[in-house]
Order: sequence, then structure tokens, then C-alpha cells
Amino acid sequence: MTEKPSIRLFIDAPLSEGVAVACNEDQANYLGNVLRLSAGAEIAIFNGRDGEWRARIAEIRKKRCMLECLERIRPQHDGPDIHYLFAPLKHARLDYMVQKAAELGVAHLQPVITRRTVAARVNLERMRANAIEAAEQCGVLRVPTVGEPLKLEALLAQWPADRQMIFCDEGAEVANPLEALRALAPGPLAVIVGPEGGFDPTERQALQGCPFTTAISLGPRIMRADTAAVAALALVNATLGDWH
Amino acid sequence: MTEKPSIRLFIDAPLSEGVAVACNEDQANYLGNVLRLSAGAEIAIFNGRDGEWRARIAEIRKKRCMLECLERIRPQHDGPDIHYLFAPLKHARLDYMVQKAAELGVAHLQPVITRRTVAARVNLERMRANAIEAAEQCGVLRVPTVGEPLKLEALLAQWPADRQMIFCDEGAEVANPLEALRALAPGPLAVIVGPEGGFDPTERQALQGCPFTTAISLGPRIMRADTAAVAALALVNATLGDWH
Repeated sequence: MTEKPSIRLFIDAPLSEGVAVACNEDQANYLGNVLRLSAGAEIAIFNGRDGEWRARIAEIRKKRCMLECLERIRPQHDGPDIHYLFAPLKHARLDYMVQKAAELGVAHLQPVITRRTVAARVNLERMRANAIEAAEQCGVLRVPTVGEPLKLEALLAQWPADRQMIFCDEGAEVANPLEALRALAPGPLAVIVGPEGGFDPTERQALQGCPFTTAISLGPRIMRADTAAVAALALVNATLGDWH
Repeated sequence: MTEKPSIRLFIDAPLSEGVAVACNEDQANYLGNVLRLSAGAEIAIFNGRDGEWRARIAEIRKKRCMLECLERIRPQHDGPDIHYLFAPLKHARLDYMVQKAAELGVAHLQPVITRRTVAARVNLERMRANAIEAAEQCGVLRVPTVGEPLKLEALLAQWPADRQMIFCDEGAEVANPLEALRALAPGPLAVIVGPEGGFDPTERQALQGCPFTTAISLGPRIMRADTAAVAALALVNATLGDWH
């Protein structure tokens, strides 16, 4: 048995035995100029659909690297069916939050514009790059999809009735979040975390009034939105996701 | 009722009604030059022991600001008795991890040197500043203490028998972490998270062999150490801490 390659890259192309796939320019630069790998070296690749593959560098030049797909080393395994809904934060904190949600195995990242959302624009390409980077580094096989930003009202108006939305409510009485989560029936899930400063009172009321929402408390301290994201997703994974 | 002040600063001095306390130079600069507050403005202050107080700016100059302590607006409330033990990470990720642990209300931050720890030096002053910043922003009343770095062997050798250590074990079979946590008796706790790359096999064995440790799994995906920190502390707070 050869050891599992430690370098792991996302390749946006179908993967199967013997197929040749091209890295993008950044990846070619990383493999050739940063890691100084040459033809014959092996890495792991995945595309979010076909599992993880051992691949050999067939050819590497400055901005170009061709890989040969050798054998599948992990079958495709999707994580739990959890959508993560969040008010975009600024800069580094948004990068961080997106990486964390991807590490926690969510299926879909959905920016939501709320009244107190501070980030004026959302760079979806950057969000996608952050999700891929986290998936590469954390052994995740499914890269979350990234949705176009939606206003909260629009999101709630078009919400599918069968997907339960867990609402991290800063204004809730402190109560055991695990009990509330365990009371939910299995099925598609979403977790929504508000902006720094929280949802405004009308937004809170709208969320509370939806038949598909369950409010949970994340304890007596106020957390930053990116911390609340990880905390809530950990609780959901442990009760309703794939942590057991 | 006057509204609660939105600015919240940590002041390392005894607080009681009518007492005069001095800000440090950074705080004076922040209040005077960044926020452009002048004498008479009110802020909230806390010292980690005497609760949270409304205070009035009595005098403000370039590098100096004196406050008058008016009335206590929150009694002192310590969070759960959880020590957070961690292999120091590099730079921004360490800042982030320390902030997160403080937001989650831990009592003590303990750097632990493991075989795979990459950070050569640990800046305790910077850790303390990060803990204070998180406490200021997140309404935490008790700033966690920061321990001198200890080697893992030394830490385990001198460990107090009555403090249960929850060990986030990447090598554990995926099993329900909540069940393992709920099986613990109430009492002082610690959570230990290894470095990027995990504990080495002898370290894992040493941890597993201690009578005071309980290994938990954080699911089938590998998380970065700072993500694991938040996830583990959220589960511990929800089962054994103060989230209910």
C-alpha cells in the first residue's frame, strides 16, 4: 500500500481511472513553484462528485500542469443536508466563516441580507474559493454550493416547507439548545445566524412566525457571528447531522 | 432608565461607586481620538471581578483618560469552570482561537506544547490582549487567565485528579460526543485540542491512559484546530456548562 498523498486539490472536471485532467494556473504554480513537485509526483484530487482520487503529475510547466487520474482512494460521501444561511460579514471574518461552515460539512452557503447587514457587496467567487480551500485542507469531499444573496423577506417567502430552519436567536431566553434540536424530526435542515448586532425586532418576529423555524439559544454570552456559526453547526451536527 | 452604554472596556483596577479609575494609553486614545468622546460621556467598564459598571469620562487628554465609576449595571457572573488547553498555532489563527475561547466563556487558557506544535514561541501578552478584546466585545464579565506554556507530559503529570479532561481525539471512531459528555459527573472541566496534524501516537496513548480523560469524536471530517476549539466548547457548554 502506498501512503495517501498529503497534497489534496479540487479539480473541476469529471474524474475516472486513466483520465487526464488539467490543473488551473494557480494550482500549477502551487505544485511546481511552491512545492517544487515534478512529473511523477502523486497528489490527491477530488471534484465534489466522484470521490477522492490518487493522481500523478504527468507534465508540469510554469502555468500548466496535467494530471493522470490513477485510482479512487475514497468513494464520494456527501455530508449532512444542512444549508447555512448568514448575513455577510466584512473581509477576513467572512472568509473565516465560510471556511468554517465548509469544514463543518454544510451543503449550501446562502448569504442573507438583513437590515443590520454591514457588508455592502458579497464576493461570491471569493466565498467559493474559501469553501474550496477549506474542503481541500479538511478532507471534505463535497464543496458547498454558494447562493446569490437574498433579502431575508424573500428567503422566508420562498422557503420550501420541508426544510426546517434553525434560528440562532440572541434574544431567546437561555434554554437548552440540545433539547430543542432533538425534538426536530429528521430531514433537510438549515441554520440561520444573524449579523453582528442581531436581527432587528421585526425580522425576529418574522422568523418566529414561520411554521418551519425553531429558535435556539446559544447561551448567556453574546458571540460574534462567526463563532455562533461554528457553535450552532457543531450542535446541529452532533444531534441531527453525521457526528454519530 | 438610561440606556446601557455600548462602549465596554476592561479596566484593571478595583471598581466601586464613586471611585476614580484611569484608562491606559491605548484606551485613552481609543476613547478620545477614535471615538471622539469628551468629558461627561458614559461607557461601561468591568475588571473581571466586580461586575459591570456605568462610568463617566471625568477628564480626557491625549494619552490620559480618567473615569468616574457611577453604578453597577451587572453583578459579577463567572462563566463555567472550563479550562481550555491547546497547542499554540501561528499568528492570526492563535489570535482567533484565543478570542473564540474567551467568547465561549472559558476560565483559563493553557498553551500546551506537543510534538507537532509548530509555533516556536508563545506571546502571552498578546494572548491576554486577545482575551480581553473578546471579553469587551462579547459582554463576558470574567477574562480568562493565561497560563505559561507547559509540555504535554508535564501537564498530565501534575494534573489535579478532580478536573475532568475532555480530549478531542481525531483518531477516535466516530461516535456521539454528546453521549460521552452527558455521562460525565458535574465538576471542574478542561477541553484539550491538539495541534494541526493531531497528537502523535504516543501522546494519544498517554492521554487515553489517564484516569481523568474522556475522548470524544468531533465527527467524520477533519477540522482545523481553531474550528475544533469552538465546536468542542459549544458541545461542552450545551451539555455540562451554562447553556441551559
